[in-house]
Amino acid sequence: MRTAAGQIGSPPYDEGMTTSADTLAGRRGASSEGHDQVRRLATAARAASRVLALLSRAEKDSALRSLADAVEAATPDIVAANEEDLVRGREGGMPESLLDRLRLDDARVAAVAQALRDVAALPDPVGEIVRGSTLANGLQIRQVRVPMGVVGMIYEARPNVTVDAAGLGLKSGNAVILRGGSAAASTNRALVRVLRSSLQEQGLPADAVSLLDGGHDAVRALMTARGLVDLLIPRGGADLIQTVVTESTVPVIETGIGNCHVYVDAAADQDKALAIVVNSKTQRPSVCNAAESLLVHADLAGSFLPRALEALHSKGVALAVAPRVGPVARSSDLPYREATDADFAEEFHGLEMSVAVVDSLDDAIAHIDRFGTGHTEAIVTEDRAAARRFVAEVDAAAVMVNASTRFTDGGEFGFGAEIGISTQKLHARGPMALPELTTTKWVVEGDGQIRG
Amino acid sequence: MRTAAGQIGSPPYDEGMTTSADTLAGRRGASSEGHDQVRRLATAARAASRVLALLSRAEKDSALRSLADAVEAATPDIVAANEEDLVRGREGGMPESLLDRLRLDDARVAAVAQALRDVAALPDPVGEIVRGSTLANGLQIRQVRVPMGVVGMIYEARPNVTVDAAGLGLKSGNAVILRGGSAAASTNRALVRVLRSSLQEQGLPADAVSLLDGGHDAVRALMTARGLVDLLIPRGGADLIQTVVTESTVPVIETGIGNCHVYVDAAADQDKALAIVVNSKTQRPSVCNAAESLLVHADLAGSFLPRALEALHSKGVALAVAPRVGPVARSSDLPYREATDADFAEEFHGLEMSVAVVDSLDDAIAHIDRFGTGHTEAIVTEDRAAARRFVAEVDAAAVMVNASTRFTDGGEFGFGAEIGISTQKLHARGPMALPELTTTKWVVEGDGQIRG
Repeated sequence: MRTAAGQIGSPPYDEGMTTSADTLAGRRGASSEGHDQVRRLATAARAASRVLALLSRAEKDSALRSLADAVEAATPDIVAANEEDLVRGREGGMPESLLDRLRLDDARVAAVAQALRDVAALPDPVGEIVRGSTLANGLQIRQVRVPMGVVGMIYEARPNVTVDAAGLGLKSGNAVILRGGSAAASTNRALVRVLRSSLQEQGLPADAVSLLDGGHDAVRALMTARGLVDLLIPRGGADLIQTVVTESTVPVIETGIGNCHVYVDAAADQDKALAIVVNSKTQRPSVCNAAESLLVHADLAGSFLPRALEALHSKGVALAVAPRVGPVARSSDLPYREATDADFAEEFHGLEMSVAVVDSLDDAIAHIDRFGTGHTEAIVTEDRAAARRFVAEVDAAAVMVNASTRFTDGGEFGFGAEIGISTQKLHARGPMALPELTTTKWVVEGDGQIRG
Repeated sequence: MRTAAGQIGSPPYDEGMTTSADTLAGRRGASSEGHDQVRRLATAARAASRVLALLSRAEKDSALRSLADAVEAATPDIVAANEEDLVRGREGGMPESLLDRLRLDDARVAAVAQALRDVAALPDPVGEIVRGSTLANGLQIRQVRVPMGVVGMIYEARPNVTVDAAGLGLKSGNAVILRGGSAAASTNRALVRVLRSSLQEQGLPADAVSLLDGGHDAVRALMTARGLVDLLIPRGGADLIQTVVTESTVPVIETGIGNCHVYVDAAADQDKALAIVVNSKTQRPSVCNAAESLLVHADLAGSFLPRALEALHSKGVALAVAPRVGPVARSSDLPYREATDADFAEEFHGLEMSVAVVDSLDDAIAHIDRFGTGHTEAIVTEDRAAARRFVAEVDAAAVMVNASTRFTDGGEFGFGAEIGISTQKLHARGPMALPELTTTKWVVEGDGQIRG
């Protein structure tokens, strides 16, 4: 599971979705229909969440396995619904790469089902005792992990996110309200229909999973349903996330904008650096933990830099370079364009990279401080002091020493799942999995204690 | 330290402060002066925070002790400034109880200074490794506690909060921007002047602590300074908190609104119950963890309920009672008024309590679900199953079994400090101390690893 780059959701493929800050900005109240729909959904979800919060791990895991079976059994319906979305996408001129992201065939439906079984195999975060002690007065206090309650997801990503979010929500004892991209509307409806009907057959509340349709007003109502919705997670492009962050009164976890840098220090092992730069940029360029910007120490401008530019070019990476890099590219006969500040601020989501030379570790840190988005920043160095300073002074969810930026990932970190990558500091920072979908409750047990 | 009930901040004592939802609602943009002031303050605070983040525990503790000395040495100035606030308060008709909360005499200044020394003695949350592991590919990952960066506080409470917030901020490596109540404006200015000048003398950035004055526009600018301010903590009355929560785009931790219940179960030990009810209501009625509402199981309506009403009345508690309680009060010749839903929803902040009879544990939980604010809820029972159900099903920051609601407190929980009590689910829930003022960073150390 991965924070998608939001390409499916980009206009013109998603006109009906709430992906544009422009279309939502300034609308401060949702219509009463939107409000009513969200109030209905969220009230039902809240009731369902009370049931989910009390389920044992065994009950939840069994439910997840049944959901997986139900998804697999419904493969023909899901594939047929997906075909409707594909036809609409094709008619709207959606490029083949995006059509491929949208597509669900038999094998992909099987993978979606398997993801539910994988979630069943993960430990249950609910009930974990985070801290606890016995106070001098005999009170026993413990901080226990409990579900959030109702979690809203607004996303533009591939339809597997619909099932992933439902599965992670169920495992963590939360009811989820899903708002997917309109490009996948038919697929999402089919998937949620299967999930709800399976829950109902199992004697569990169908409202553990619901799909929010309706227009912008409904989304606005979701974002302002404070008290009914406990947490909102936007996943997708920068515009979507910016809109949700700005307009929501429901607590939000900001995810996924990654303008990630690789800084190759004067003391770098150049072979490691080359592999890390190429991997960070090209191994999967559309995702948020791909690198967008290469910073090379001036000492390496004549040695490493030409090798790096050549390697990137040979992998098809377009180069947007700072003035001091241009001559190096020219002398290697490599195509490039001059980078503006906007290039250094850009998350390209593709085979493009900004490149600059810096005179020192301090300059590298200052550049990252100016242009970084607090996602993942990497240094390549054999200098222990430089590594320590970079780790201490760079303000980001993840800081890598001699490793690809691509490792910032719930799966890679061993979490077994990922609901998104938080780039904010409140509650969760970096890859979020099951524990990040919970809150805590203090349980205090006494024998009649009162305060003096 | 405690979440104050916001009484100082209530009109007409605080007309210049941002305490009223009415006066702020609808103003969507701050003036450019407000923006400029906040941008200046926050940019300077951010630069200071980078220095603070790298200080060792020894350096921070030494700085805190020097701040304490400086506050004590400035006692005459502080007391004189406080006298200005007292004169203004008296002229504005501030009641004696509020004047007393506002007052700083020599002994209280000494206590404020001592609080800084107490914070110096607490463990440093920064640098704590929360989780970590070595992955199969040899990557060593660890989640390390780091400061938030810049923390804004908007509060109405007593002037000691100004120094407490500065001290807790410094210890946790954060720069703080303080917006206190206008009733304490002169005192806060004097305190912050002392703190900043002591920091400067110590070679530390004065901008670690700054005071935001200016009008509503400045406060609005603070609430929307996303990217410059990492966290906003409002402390005060319901209107203040509601305004901050609704209008902020900066991440907020909601604090302190407490409509706390004591449910006396059919299986309660009545003596314990009586002590807990009286203590929860009357030991300090103005604070957020005081109980506002008493729910008594119907089985005890003839035995415990009259005793409880009598005990509360004898402590001066006015009773707002549900229909089934009225006859009990009448037969004991106790004064009461009939409670409305508004009474059951009310945080009285004083010697007043709503009382209802419920037919079952389920009804008690349903009542709390309807009227509670998710702060602290207590059950008194000797029935293990009832206690377990109450603990599992009541959704609140703290759930007490056979203990006073008054124990939800950072000091009582052994945290050594408290910056507020969170009633939201994101990031922190319940009493917040030093760790809650931090976030985490993933540090990943490798030897050239790339993703395959």
